[in-house]
Formats: sequence, structure tokens, C-alpha cells
Amino acid sequence: MSGAAQPLIGAVDLGGTKILALIVDAGGHVLGEDERPTEVTRGPEAVLARIGDSLRAAMAAAHVRAIAALGVATPGPIDFARGVIVEAANLPGWHEVPVAARLGELFGCPALLENDANAAAWGEFTLGTGPDRPQHLVYLTISTGIGGGLVLDGRLYRGADGAAGELGHIPIVPDGPPCGCGARGCLEALASGTAIARRAREMLAAGRAPILARLAGDDTLTAELVHQAAEAGDADAALVIAEAGQHLGRGLATVINLFNPEVIVLGGGVAKIGARLLEPALATMHAQALSLPARRVHVVPAALGHRAGALGVAVLARGLLG
Amino acid sequence: MSGAAQPLIGAVDLGGTKILALIVDAGGHVLGEDERPTEVTRGPEAVLARIGDSLRAAMAAAHVRAIAALGVATPGPIDFARGVIVEAANLPGWHEVPVAARLGELFGCPALLENDANAAAWGEFTLGTGPDRPQHLVYLTISTGIGGGLVLDGRLYRGADGAAGELGHIPIVPDGPPCGCGARGCLEALASGTAIARRAREMLAAGRAPILARLAGDDTLTAELVHQAAEAGDADAALVIAEAGQHLGRGLATVINLFNPEVIVLGGGVAKIGARLLEPALATMHAQALSLPARRVHVVPAALGHRAGALGVAVLARGLLG
Repeated sequence: MSGAAQPLIGAVDLGGTKILALIVDAGGHVLGEDERPTEVTRGPEAVLARIGDSLRAAMAAAHVRAIAALGVATPGPIDFARGVIVEAANLPGWHEVPVAARLGELFGCPALLENDANAAAWGEFTLGTGPDRPQHLVYLTISTGIGGGLVLDGRLYRGADGAAGELGHIPIVPDGPPCGCGARGCLEALASGTAIARRAREMLAAGRAPILARLAGDDTLTAELVHQAAEAGDADAALVIAEAGQHLGRGLATVINLFNPEVIVLGGGVAKIGARLLEPALATMHAQALSLPARRVHVVPAALGHRAGALGVAVLARGLLG
Repeated sequence: MSGAAQPLIGAVDLGGTKILALIVDAGGHVLGEDERPTEVTRGPEAVLARIGDSLRAAMAAAHVRAIAALGVATPGPIDFARGVIVEAANLPGWHEVPVAARLGELFGCPALLENDANAAAWGEFTLGTGPDRPQHLVYLTISTGIGGGLVLDGRLYRGADGAAGELGHIPIVPDGPPCGCGARGCLEALASGTAIARRAREMLAAGRAPILARLAGDDTLTAELVHQAAEAGDADAALVIAEAGQHLGRGLATVINLFNPEVIVLGGGVAKIGARLLEPALATMHAQALSLPARRVHVVPAALGHRAGALGVAVLARGLLG
């Protein structure tokens, strides 16, 4: 347990709503943990200070006084090489914030910044797979949005700008519903939690989905609630989820035909809906994907849960120590 | 020019209609060339003998007596590791043919087999790009079908079964026209030469495309003829090509959002249609792709033309010599 024998890593998952800080050993075990609201409205300086507080709380929980390296996972766009958050849809007012340099200074150790989906992909690859580690793993996370990360030939693939693996923005339906990115018919606009809730609101506005109508309050319509209504027998709610699943299946087929991976890992809260989403997804995937790579692939749930991004960036930060 | 000073490579592009054989030096220069019909109906043994004849003719043209290594590019599915054509849609009756071993034996040198689109991608990457070589290049070829090859982080990416980069089978339109692969609405079913001709025939059957109707004989409806009709003022023929271009643009957006490449190289005869196909393709691509990677990418025509596959497999075979 001594710092000299085994360097400990500080790892942070910085989201728009909460900060998760972990102290992780070389084997990927969590020795200390802290979670607190981001309080994003207070701006970058205050949030950087809160990240420091959160890391110190996790260190106290782990009974350690120092960390040897530090990693931060956050939604992009980030500049990996410089460790800078260029801008961030879920962190309003953040422009060109040198997160790695600032936190590295605060803790007196090397630090890096990584896209959270890339970090989660790397976490699932290094810590979440079994002894027969695959060489090619695609991570797809479905929550309010849809993100992805790519491990190809055993290495994290970032592309020319660190913008590779944007699985949420695979075009699925020509001239489909508008997406937050400015385009139309992206996977995220059709199968994310936000998309499922939007489609369910259209159902309610058309006087359909009676059970959902009884369950839903004014501002509480979530994918999880649509799922609850479907489980309670609401056929329209079930249809909304099944259609999202079919769109997801088209996205999975694209992934299979382009990457020919051994494993696709599904993470995020919406993936937990389970069979109502995944059965139509897998049926469409098999109808649309080429048979050779479709036979090869295993679609599996994420092993690391909400800690995947922080654990993955811990493994990456460990690499800073050579 | 001596074999000892500079090993020469034999390179073959084996297609369903013709065999192209080249003798290539270490700088990628072609010293000898032969092209002849495959005569595919005569079966694997006769075609293997013809490949030998074609290579010997190219050697004679180059005035060389021996080659140091040999590469064969062919449509898949192939087993790269074993050098075996597993089966081939355009080579009927070929099952488990050990092409690399048989030809290596015939010429007394090491030999390898590669998917033709992968080989062309590698050729465009190693020989077709300028001094500022990109790290991430996607090759997309549009002829009767649509194929692709991926160079990621400076390396050829094959995936778990050598089946990666099947750009022709990106799902574009849900429940769209049937594709040769058994799925529906694939890029190949919407933007290949075959797809353009099929859509034009639908136009003719509906009494539209009057100029095309005058140009087209019974069995001569090709994408090139549709282009000629469009150039002659046929608005329906122009529409067919523009719609194919829009579908192509959705495929390009998928490539950009997933791979974030510096370069997309467009090869194949249909890509030569030019602006009528590419202008709508680029417009749709920019409307649908994320702005950061879309600003980065250059979409360029193939530099190596019909020799790309053979030249690329020559560079790969050169690697057999260490």
C-alpha cells in the first residue's frame, strides 16, 4: 500500500452535473472515492477548485497523502495533446481551460485530460474484459446523449483531432429529427434518452400512451419513465423504445461493418432498459450487418458502470509514469 | 536495376474480369506490366496458371528473370494470415484456394494475399500522398460496387477478420433498396454504378429520362451513360446522379464522424463522373458531419488509378523481405 512501492493515481470524471474522484492503484482497484455536484454555474475557476476538493476527499478516504499522477475525463471537444478543454456543451463558459496543467500544478504531479468516452473505452478494454482480451473493442454509451470510444489493434484510436468515435453522430435517417450537433437524423437524435423522451412527448401530445400519461408529471418525462410505462403495459411507450432500439441496431451494424470488432460494450443509463431496447437493436443489427463480422462480435454490457471513465483515465495517467 | 541491389516485387490485382500484373521496384516505379482477361469460368487452377503467365509476361517486359517477393490483391473474403481466398463473389467456384502459397512456390519467393481495397488504401497512403503524409487515410472506391480500406495511425487496419472498412455496407436509408449483401439501404445499393443504373432503369420504366432513353440500348445502361445523358441536358438523369451523390455524402459524413481522418481518397470509375456526383456529396457531407472533423478532412481523387491495388500490395509484399 506504500506510495513508493505502488504509485497511486488520482482520477476524475468531470460531467456537467457531477464530479467523481477516485484514488486507484496499479491493479485498477479503487482505494478512495468522492462524488459531489459540479455546480457548473459557478464557472471554471470554482469548478477547478471543487475538483481539487473532491480529489483531496478521495485521498482522505484512501488514507493517502500524495498521488503520483492524475487524469481527468470529460466530454469534448478537448485538445488531448495540450490537456485543454477547448469548449464543452455541458460546461457553459468553458473555453480553452488548461485543466491538465492547472490540476497537475495543484497536486505536484503529471496530469492528462481525455475525452470521457475514450477514457471509458480504455477502462473497459484494460480492466473490464476477461483473460481473452480482444484486440478491437468499441464502447458505446447511451444516456442523455450517445458517445463512443474506439480501441483498435489494442490501442486507443483518437483520429486527427481527437474527434474519432463520435458514434452518436452516425447518420441513421436521412432528413430525420434535428440533432444537437446541427445535423439531422443522427443516432443521438433517435436513440438517446433525450430522443426517447421527445418521441414519447409526441405520443402524449397525440393523445396516445395512456399509462405513460398517468405516470408522467410536467417535467419528469425520462426514458426510464417511458420504460416503466411499457413494463406496465403501455403499447405506445413500448413502441417508442422498440423504435429507438431499431435505430440503435442500425448504428451497431455500421460499427460492425466498419470496425469488425470482437466486442461492442454498451454503457450508460439508457442501455440499462435492457431487452425492450436491446432485442430490437440486435435483430436489426443482424439484419443489416455483414454476416462474417456479425458472427464475430459480442455485444456486452459495460463492466465498470459509472466508474468506467474515471478508471480508464486512471490507467492512461498511470502511463505518464513510464 | 540489378536484383541484388534493389529487390523487385511481383504484384497482381486479381479481379473477376481481368488480371493486372506489375513488376515494381522499391520506389514504387512500374518496370513491367501485363493485363489479360481472368477467364474466370475456367476455374481456380487455370486462373492460377494465367496469373503465373501474366507475371512472367510482366517480368519479360521489365527484362528481369526473378522477383524477390510477390503480392496478390483480390476482393474478399480472404484469410490474410493464411494467404487463402476463402470465397469470392466475383470468382465463382473458389473456396479455400491457397493463392499465396501456390504462387510463392511457382516463383520461389515469399508471397502474400490482401483484400484489394485494403491494398489500394495502402498504395494511396504510401505512394499517392505528398510529403505531408497523413496519419489517417480512408480509401473509398466506387465502381460496380463500393469498397473501402482504412489506414489509421499510419497502419493498415483490418479488424478481427480482415473484414473492416466495408464502406459499401454502411446503412444509409432504413428499409431502402435491397443490397447484394442481403441487407437493405446500404451505400452500395444507393450510390454504386449498379445502383445508379438500376435507378435510371426505374426512370425509363416510368417514361422519364428522355435523352437517356435515346442513348441507352437494351443492355448498355451504365452509370457512365446516365452521366452522358445528364451532360446532354436530361434532368431526370441528372437527378439520379445527384441523389446518388447525396447518399454518398451521408456515407462520407459517417466516415468523418467515426474516423476523423485527414484524407478521404475517392477511387473507382464512378467517382470519375466528377462534379455532378461530388458536389451534392460534399454538400450533404458538410451538412451532416461534425464541424471539427469536417474542417480537417480533404476529399481527394485517387492518385494511382487502376494500379492502386497492385501497387499497394507490392509495397506490402516488399515488407516480407524485412
